[in-house]
Amino acid sequence: MRPFARVCAEDIAYFETLMPGRALSGEAIGEDYDHDEMTEYGHFAPEAVLRALSTDEVSAVLRYCNGRNIAVTPRGAGTGLCGGCVAVDGGVVLSTEKMKRVLEVDVKNMTATLEPGVLLMEFPKALEGTGLFYPPDPGEKTATMGGNAMTNAGGMRAVRYGVTRDYILGMEVVSADGEVLNLGGKNVKNSSGYSLLDLLIGSEGTLAFLTKLTVRLVPEPRVNLSLLIPFDDLDRCIEAVPAILGCGAEPTAVEFMEREVIKAAETYLGKQFPDASADAYLLIRLDGESASALKPAMDRLTELALSLGAKDVLLADTEERKESIWNARGAFLEAIKGGTPSMDECDVVLPRDRIAEFVRKSIEIGREEDVRICSFGHAGDGNLHIYACQDALPDDIWKPKVEAVMQKLYAHARAFGGEVSGEHGIGHAKRAFLAESVGFRQVELMRGIKRVFDPNGILNPGKVI
Amino acid sequence: MRPFARVCAEDIAYFETLMPGRALSGEAIGEDYDHDEMTEYGHFAPEAVLRALSTDEVSAVLRYCNGRNIAVTPRGAGTGLCGGCVAVDGGVVLSTEKMKRVLEVDVKNMTATLEPGVLLMEFPKALEGTGLFYPPDPGEKTATMGGNAMTNAGGMRAVRYGVTRDYILGMEVVSADGEVLNLGGKNVKNSSGYSLLDLLIGSEGTLAFLTKLTVRLVPEPRVNLSLLIPFDDLDRCIEAVPAILGCGAEPTAVEFMEREVIKAAETYLGKQFPDASADAYLLIRLDGESASALKPAMDRLTELALSLGAKDVLLADTEERKESIWNARGAFLEAIKGGTPSMDECDVVLPRDRIAEFVRKSIEIGREEDVRICSFGHAGDGNLHIYACQDALPDDIWKPKVEAVMQKLYAHARAFGGEVSGEHGIGHAKRAFLAESVGFRQVELMRGIKRVFDPNGILNPGKVI
Repeated sequence: MRPFARVCAEDIAYFETLMPGRALSGEAIGEDYDHDEMTEYGHFAPEAVLRALSTDEVSAVLRYCNGRNIAVTPRGAGTGLCGGCVAVDGGVVLSTEKMKRVLEVDVKNMTATLEPGVLLMEFPKALEGTGLFYPPDPGEKTATMGGNAMTNAGGMRAVRYGVTRDYILGMEVVSADGEVLNLGGKNVKNSSGYSLLDLLIGSEGTLAFLTKLTVRLVPEPRVNLSLLIPFDDLDRCIEAVPAILGCGAEPTAVEFMEREVIKAAETYLGKQFPDASADAYLLIRLDGESASALKPAMDRLTELALSLGAKDVLLADTEERKESIWNARGAFLEAIKGGTPSMDECDVVLPRDRIAEFVRKSIEIGREEDVRICSFGHAGDGNLHIYACQDALPDDIWKPKVEAVMQKLYAHARAFGGEVSGEHGIGHAKRAFLAESVGFRQVELMRGIKRVFDPNGILNPGKVI
Repeated sequence: MRPFARVCAEDIAYFETLMPGRALSGEAIGEDYDHDEMTEYGHFAPEAVLRALSTDEVSAVLRYCNGRNIAVTPRGAGTGLCGGCVAVDGGVVLSTEKMKRVLEVDVKNMTATLEPGVLLMEFPKALEGTGLFYPPDPGEKTATMGGNAMTNAGGMRAVRYGVTRDYILGMEVVSADGEVLNLGGKNVKNSSGYSLLDLLIGSEGTLAFLTKLTVRLVPEPRVNLSLLIPFDDLDRCIEAVPAILGCGAEPTAVEFMEREVIKAAETYLGKQFPDASADAYLLIRLDGESASALKPAMDRLTELALSLGAKDVLLADTEERKESIWNARGAFLEAIKGGTPSMDECDVVLPRDRIAEFVRKSIEIGREEDVRICSFGHAGDGNLHIYACQDALPDDIWKPKVEAVMQKLYAHARAFGGEVSGEHGIGHAKRAFLAESVGFRQVELMRGIKRVFDPNGILNPGKVI
């Protein structure tokens, strides 16, 4: 049925010689490799898992598999939410989990060069004492930096600092036929031909295999503070966002959260959220040189929020208080997952003036389909995470319901000028929605590009397009 | 010799019906359309110049030319420096000069949607009173916004704000066969399949024709000030840059300038530069909320500069003083051009810790070849503009000399981890240098992408690759 060759004993023998002790097959593979964080999208067992240590090994594996028509699924930490790293067509999973060295921190150029398997949570350790930091801040800290690059991950600080794309200056990648290519470097500007670098960012491992990346760092802001702003209702809360973004206070993060999700996080963490007075909150972070330098922005935000109907503006400037708020925010996804046997997620991004309307719409859709909907997200970026929760619904009722909910959510996102994914990517789970969103011609262009990079289609088949 | 059809009387008749009074042919075309700012790269007369008013017209022209194998060269204001908008293969020039409407300023979403022919210098007028501004600040203010997008133009403020790419959220483009495609929109984040938007940015009109763009705006900083920092020599001046970038002061611009170029600007403008005490200067701009909010950064920069060998730190906080400095900076290119019968330019970008070495190298190369070299540039981005000036050299001696200078400069840029172009693009003049820089495989990938978008190769032939 599928166009790829099965992995045979001879292939396994080759892989074992190439990477002794790091080529898994049969029972040794284990269940972890057959899914990502969304088991809802199915389990797909790879025929071999290859844990490469070097670019040379990646190159040898790709050359071999390309010659033998074996599918290769790149995989980092497996924390994705769209099935981007699961072997839907079998073949080998080529994992970066052992490529986790930070190769260089270049303080003078403010860059770091690292292997793709470095975890987002580990990378800051390599920067300690340099006064530099890496701004992108996706919620899932156990994700790999390579996975972040390949999905163009976003995160909380994108309002001020931008997304992963904005910090990748260079990549070493291996083509489907095993050639090593260097894209970009340590340069912070570039107008030298088509940006293959930008094309690769967010391509989910379908065009080439990432083996090294060079990221831009920035001076670490000396102080930060957070404002927690309670509102009587979610609507008024989100409606305040455009004015907050436009007031010149340069917030680093503008998140929205509702009471129900906060309660789930309290249960999940076993800790109280510092405020219980309201149904909805905006959480704003400011970064700067000094507390006094931040004061004008803080004052302006406070005044503005109160004029827009906020009940109060609570300042969090101690570590304890900041942690208690941001830890709750960081636990939302796990808390929602923990509270329902199954769920589906929609990572739409919208023009920022439409998010209040979209959240209202999502609640309506939940009512129509009788499915519990909850949401949180990066209000400052127009990037919402909307969850449909199965709760007590039996599978045969839940499945068509969640399908209908997702169809309606994406249709509204399109109508509102939004896009299918703000930061999680497409994987195999959201392909149909991408095609509907961008239309036939753009999918054809993407397919054409795919053929240019990977004529045999062995790289991460069944993903994106 | 060339593969394209000539424009015949029947074609002209079609174009005249399609766009009455806006289709030029024969004598009516005039010399302006046969070159860009670098007449050094030759004159290429188009067979027709079509000044479109609408997406529909662009679509009709492309469908027609694609069917009849007529080359189409997109053109904005013709201010490029690499011959990107000249019809090296004849055919038609499709000009955006009449597509100059700002269609919408969306204050709530902080975006603007405009036609590609809007001039960079005119765009701010549309934003007056909104409190918003468009940060990219390329030196050539009579360039079009479309041209900026298609070369990923950079400019002075890129240190803090980034380049044109960082501000383009959406594009309407017309494919080579006339289909209208919408890429992106008003969303500030996106992980929805391959970024065709980013692929198109900087593609110099070779993949599709830009008819509309949506850009991101940011709140206008309330105050700005400039620091002019004299140094005894260029070397010490540029060596100071990495420490200045790393100190956390968040400068908007960090430019370097040398006495010789300043003198040329004084002559060109007929105005004195406010300081004559030094051979080399750094010019730093800070943007912020208020003068008091900028004070810590200014103090830190002053102390740091003096510790790094600056002779003084001169504050420019009045409009007059700022203008006199920045006007001189803005006149450098014209001043250099005005002082020599012919010149060639190199727009390399390098890791920022290599720029002092590269400027020294460029002076050495000038000595070896006995050619006057001068330079200025965006020190904070590692983006240098190096000029080789003909002066009194006769043409037959100058031509091989300038060729040798350019070869050596680009070879050193490659060796230093640099790229061919930081912001001007490749056009037809820098193609060989791009190919040498990125290598055969990357050029092949770019060619493959070109074929996917434009199978007949009618769009801006002879450019980039």
